[in-house]
Amino acid sequence: MTKPYRLRPFVAAMPATVPFVGPEAQERARGKPFRARIGANECLFGPSPKAVAAMAEAGREIWKYGDPEGYETRHAIAAHHGVRPENVVLGGGIDGLLGNASRMFVEEGVHVVTSNGAYPTFNFHVTGYGGTLHKVVYRDDREDIAALLDKAGETNAAMIYLSNPDNPMGTWWGADAINDMIANLPDGCILLLDEAYGEYAPAGVLPAIDTSNPRVLRFRTFSKAYGMAGARVGYCIGEAQLISEFEKVRDHYGMNRTAEIGAIAALGDHEWLASVISRTAAARERIAQIARDNGLAPIASGTNFVTIDCGRDSAYAKSVMEGVLSRGVFIRMPGVEPLSRCIRVSAGFEEDLEIFAEVLADTLKALR
Amino acid sequence: MTKPYRLRPFVAAMPATVPFVGPEAQERARGKPFRARIGANECLFGPSPKAVAAMAEAGREIWKYGDPEGYETRHAIAAHHGVRPENVVLGGGIDGLLGNASRMFVEEGVHVVTSNGAYPTFNFHVTGYGGTLHKVVYRDDREDIAALLDKAGETNAAMIYLSNPDNPMGTWWGADAINDMIANLPDGCILLLDEAYGEYAPAGVLPAIDTSNPRVLRFRTFSKAYGMAGARVGYCIGEAQLISEFEKVRDHYGMNRTAEIGAIAALGDHEWLASVISRTAAARERIAQIARDNGLAPIASGTNFVTIDCGRDSAYAKSVMEGVLSRGVFIRMPGVEPLSRCIRVSAGFEEDLEIFAEVLADTLKALR
Repeated sequence: MTKPYRLRPFVAAMPATVPFVGPEAQERARGKPFRARIGANECLFGPSPKAVAAMAEAGREIWKYGDPEGYETRHAIAAHHGVRPENVVLGGGIDGLLGNASRMFVEEGVHVVTSNGAYPTFNFHVTGYGGTLHKVVYRDDREDIAALLDKAGETNAAMIYLSNPDNPMGTWWGADAINDMIANLPDGCILLLDEAYGEYAPAGVLPAIDTSNPRVLRFRTFSKAYGMAGARVGYCIGEAQLISEFEKVRDHYGMNRTAEIGAIAALGDHEWLASVISRTAAARERIAQIARDNGLAPIASGTNFVTIDCGRDSAYAKSVMEGVLSRGVFIRMPGVEPLSRCIRVSAGFEEDLEIFAEVLADTLKALR
Repeated sequence: MTKPYRLRPFVAAMPATVPFVGPEAQERARGKPFRARIGANECLFGPSPKAVAAMAEAGREIWKYGDPEGYETRHAIAAHHGVRPENVVLGGGIDGLLGNASRMFVEEGVHVVTSNGAYPTFNFHVTGYGGTLHKVVYRDDREDIAALLDKAGETNAAMIYLSNPDNPMGTWWGADAINDMIANLPDGCILLLDEAYGEYAPAGVLPAIDTSNPRVLRFRTFSKAYGMAGARVGYCIGEAQLISEFEKVRDHYGMNRTAEIGAIAALGDHEWLASVISRTAAARERIAQIARDNGLAPIASGTNFVTIDCGRDSAYAKSVMEGVLSRGVFIRMPGVEPLSRCIRVSAGFEEDLEIFAEVLADTLKALR
């Protein structure tokens, strides 16, 4: 019998990988909710109450499609960053925008460089468009800029991916190092600079935005410090001509109208953002202290999570994560050695972290 | 100087087309809001108040990513249609899902059949993935099933697109005709059946769902009768194995969490849906009457809009549309002859339609 349908051979041959299993699936499997949800680097402190109010007020108006030009949202973002609206494109979170960028640049025969253990969703997009990924080893728990550049030159790569501050390690490079990297990109290679955690970064980490440079795309999001992961609002800043190329591949009516209204309100609430950042810093300190109290080594973080070195191999860290999960606390861990000697814990309220402290101690005791 | 970046040659060569200009852009151009927004087939009656309440209640929880499996939403939809959750995939409206399906099936060398004047966003996706579109002429203002099948056989097409009830004409085929079409699909060709307006359809139009048939994908949405166009929640129903292929290309974390909660609430509010459908039917009658009162010929509609034959050529219909627009009422018109002898007016409240009646009469008077 002939096949009833004809998938593209490339798609037919693709594995059906899902970058991350959600906590909801784990809750369904365990038959009860987690006691603390501190695994997906969400912002438990939530969105600005002004964003919540703006979204609630706009609720009934959801019968309207969003503005396909995202005019007001792009103008608000542009004003916030001191760039022009033409330098900003909206997307369904950084995930969606990385998908768009992959579609613009990647096809079979195109080489792309990332770090081994860096964001799996980026890899999902690159391989999903037929690209060849080259993965560079982290050095001292940081993405290795020199090695990324070398590998890009060696493979004639079209793109390098770098997250700064980094996920899943929480480490970072200063703006000077990033600017050096940009200056030394091989011919015809652009940098996808994922700054999802940019608002949490220490001073001096985010380079000044240079929208005259068509070799850098900077990705930002309302999913982290703005506390709106479920809204799917991200944006990419870059040189105007390059940004305009997104129009060819993006879903013009794809943005949730209410989410954009919330994002604009969130962007205007500087006080809330400052309070989130300060509460997150305190939570990082507390997580680090919990790690040390249990004889583990927290890695300094410029994000809203702390990655904790469990001091042994991947199998041990996995046992620790599973012990914590089975005791009702949702956390995750890096997927690739040597990063996978660690577990990763997101900032949360004091009560979330106390639960974590309790179950971590229990877990380690049980593992001894 | 070398190019700083290397777009895929295919993308570099693509025109930057936007399927539709939004009413917001037109409002910015005219410097004031429209008096009535009845051009995008939105549901002015709005979403169920239960959906609005559920979304407002969930507002603060938007710090959480949505469940990448869309478990609860898919289960609710499956129960609603009497299918299994494995037969349902969620997406960012039908637009997003048509993009996913195009990515699954279309690449350079793949042929796709649609009707000349049918949904431009589908064309945007097919050409955006490199496919070759073949457009069949409407017959008597309906998509021509026999001609679509013939063209698909002739071109060895991988997909046929059909909307039923149809946009932009509002016409429809009965379930028997659709089932015949499905039975006669050429080898290796699937039907993308866009039922965005399905809730409005007269009895006997929607065929029974047969999830054993891997040659039909049925697209439904919360954008129309459920009044949630800005939410971006659509779904596709099909045979389980085919539906599972969407996992390879979709953005797993792409759904707005609050929107899914609203959709589930909307799905449960049968009374509201019934009231929307009945108010829409009354509005269609009123639009038809306004057309007749002005000497124009409304086309019978199974949707939430009425397409009005202006009785002359495209240039005349365009003048009518522009006259109506310039007088503050947002409407649209089909883009392709012979459909473009018409204008298209969405259902709305009595006051919206009274404004339309007034400006249509003024417009026609000015054109005489």
